[in-house]
Amino acid sequence: MNNRGQTASATPGNTKPTPEEHLAAITELIAQCGNWPSIEEIAVVDALGRALATSVPAPYDSPRFSNSQVDGYALSHAALERLPGVFSVGNDIPAGTDPAAVYPQGIDPENTGEMIVPIMTGAKVPEGTAVIVRVEDALPPEFPGTVVREPAEATGNRAATTTDSGEPASARREIVAAQAGQFVRQQGIDSSAGDIIVEAGEVLTPTAIAALAFQGVPIVQVRARARVLIATGGAEVAEIGELDTEAGSAIIPDANFPMLAAQARRYGLEPVGRVHIDDDVDKLATSLQQAIEEYHPDLVVTSGGISKGKYEVVRQLLADGSDAWFGAVSQQPGGPQGYGSFAGVPCVCLPGNPVSSLVSFRLFVAPAVGVAPDPIEVIATEPLTGLADKDQFLRARLEYSGGHVRARIVSGPGSHLLQQAVAADALVRVPAGATINARQRVWAYPF
Amino acid sequence: MNNRGQTASATPGNTKPTPEEHLAAITELIAQCGNWPSIEEIAVVDALGRALATSVPAPYDSPRFSNSQVDGYALSHAALERLPGVFSVGNDIPAGTDPAAVYPQGIDPENTGEMIVPIMTGAKVPEGTAVIVRVEDALPPEFPGTVVREPAEATGNRAATTTDSGEPASARREIVAAQAGQFVRQQGIDSSAGDIIVEAGEVLTPTAIAALAFQGVPIVQVRARARVLIATGGAEVAEIGELDTEAGSAIIPDANFPMLAAQARRYGLEPVGRVHIDDDVDKLATSLQQAIEEYHPDLVVTSGGISKGKYEVVRQLLADGSDAWFGAVSQQPGGPQGYGSFAGVPCVCLPGNPVSSLVSFRLFVAPAVGVAPDPIEVIATEPLTGLADKDQFLRARLEYSGGHVRARIVSGPGSHLLQQAVAADALVRVPAGATINARQRVWAYPF
Repeated sequence: MNNRGQTASATPGNTKPTPEEHLAAITELIAQCGNWPSIEEIAVVDALGRALATSVPAPYDSPRFSNSQVDGYALSHAALERLPGVFSVGNDIPAGTDPAAVYPQGIDPENTGEMIVPIMTGAKVPEGTAVIVRVEDALPPEFPGTVVREPAEATGNRAATTTDSGEPASARREIVAAQAGQFVRQQGIDSSAGDIIVEAGEVLTPTAIAALAFQGVPIVQVRARARVLIATGGAEVAEIGELDTEAGSAIIPDANFPMLAAQARRYGLEPVGRVHIDDDVDKLATSLQQAIEEYHPDLVVTSGGISKGKYEVVRQLLADGSDAWFGAVSQQPGGPQGYGSFAGVPCVCLPGNPVSSLVSFRLFVAPAVGVAPDPIEVIATEPLTGLADKDQFLRARLEYSGGHVRARIVSGPGSHLLQQAVAADALVRVPAGATINARQRVWAYPF
Repeated sequence: MNNRGQTASATPGNTKPTPEEHLAAITELIAQCGNWPSIEEIAVVDALGRALATSVPAPYDSPRFSNSQVDGYALSHAALERLPGVFSVGNDIPAGTDPAAVYPQGIDPENTGEMIVPIMTGAKVPEGTAVIVRVEDALPPEFPGTVVREPAEATGNRAATTTDSGEPASARREIVAAQAGQFVRQQGIDSSAGDIIVEAGEVLTPTAIAALAFQGVPIVQVRARARVLIATGGAEVAEIGELDTEAGSAIIPDANFPMLAAQARRYGLEPVGRVHIDDDVDKLATSLQQAIEEYHPDLVVTSGGISKGKYEVVRQLLADGSDAWFGAVSQQPGGPQGYGSFAGVPCVCLPGNPVSSLVSFRLFVAPAVGVAPDPIEVIATEPLTGLADKDQFLRARLEYSGGHVRARIVSGPGSHLLQQAVAADALVRVPAGATINARQRVWAYPF
């Protein structure tokens, strides 16, 4: 079935599909042909940039237990009522120590309010705590003594401490004032057990990884990276390092494989192998078959060999398939496009000019199977005139200032002007027939 | 030498360094201690996201030779002058074929203007070409015959073709009009030999990789990724998978190692190893020494153990060094900071709260040794009130619409509110004492 038929352009007199229609057709082709996306389980620590396949609920409240926000002293309710006052100082609660091991009945079981308890940042707040006062807000503003601790292995009790200062461990501290609840991070104030930490579909950032790890989640289910086999070439194209540097050669180096492999990585895909296209359709069939058997790609991306020439081997190989379409999309550059399947693997067929290939991968491959940024509205820095009958995608550099995003066009429209596109970090879309003034808004597709 | 002394805050009555001063001090520490950045040579195809160490000049003009932009016919000057007219059709020039092999004297050595020459997209333009006419602009609008070529190996000449259509190879084509020079991509129109393709310091994008590959550049010199040893822990922190899930435990999972490792990767660094910090300074010294010998890091990043508590082992280990500084930076979160060196390796010491650590890595580690986005001015979506005496960095989500970038605050100021920060993709800086209205501009630091 040719799924292009289901998405024919609705524009009267214009039978070329729009970029959106072409993307939809490719997305459908991949859904019909492929096994992608499969799901894999990976360690949270290795999951940067991966798209979560299933939402992860929090196993615990966060914080998991009420804990101290500072290094300071825990005061009971009775002690709080005695402020301002002078207090004796109890045994420490270091971080990582269960306070119930040090104060089984809580810090002030008899409500005398005479003693305060040193507690370190992150330590679990002991039973009976009303408030925590920072160490620097007591007088004198240090903890009593410098602690010398036996190795934890030897004592088995992290609270077993002695002091080596001249000051007795029974030192006293004066505290003037405090507000109820201060410096206590309450259990569950960040989130509750059962809350979704990260939703399915979200791309994992360092913060998301931290939130998952903070909940003790070691493994997550993510979408597998699409495995992409990249076919580039044309008889005039040599692989890097094979270039004949003799003057007069009509051979050019292959810019497309390195570019498409980099784009694949940029958008979260895995380039698994390459196929060189020369101008022989049978050889292409053989090498594609071999590479598919070797690499098991989810997708083949080709560049070149799809337009009106005599040696359009990609089109010749694929165009007769029942799910194939080759033609022109209503855009420039990247008008010639195609898709089909080979040995059951979906094939997205991009034009061969490097800039056309770059633009097409960004618009059709990245959003179909990768992680691509959403288009954003930006401000044009110069007047732009659209083509009569198709949308134009200009290479541009986004500039941020004063709360605005502006797009500065960095290259002419020619699809061979690769060098001039180096500074680009986005495509700017100029609609067919549009006249855009400087400072008017246009849509940009960030790379 | 303590380089903090050189960058003391100039603000009267405020001796805390600003975030900028702290970054400058860390940058200087790394310059003094480390061998980073070293330079390494890597294949262009693997260089995505790497910072170029040396500018790369173009070895060739781009395009390297004048070539056809379309599938069409090359016309001589004499043929162009005969328009409108009917022409005989010569032998093909496929892409990759040196036209001098097919037309040693050029396409029209006798200036008869009677013959036109089929030429494919990307093929080198033959001597004597004035203009190229698209195949679809001639009548009939196809090339004569479907080409059947012998395998290139057999003939040794890619231009040796025969046709299998009923139409004789001597078919004629009518052409009505053309403009001088059309559809010829002139040699050097994109850039000239010797032009810099990519400047030193630039981060390589897919487009830059394509431009380098298009010039046949196989290898580039890039800055080595900084090798980072990450030390996290605290006695209350367990590694993922080692968490005691029993109720009442005072142990929390280690969010910081996965987060800092992900941040390192995000900003182009290489996390090479980890060290667990517990609350024993001698054990920390031993494990740090062992890890430095094993992993040869350029930099150690620690989190926790640097504030006012009794068990601040990182500070205890490093603070006496001649190049060390531990204190408070004028910001929140991430006020407590430190640096020093150990076994000759610079150590950047971040606070232990996950959000403080996240903020600090973004502000101090990423720009010092990694590839961090520049701060941008954005528009606040709600009123923001600064703290009295220090700058505040709020977690925010950037929203793009109508040519504007707005920052929506997604979490409270608490450095323990990790879950609420998951959606953040930037930090918003609220200066000390500032009152910012909705729709006013603030600076954002994109993650």
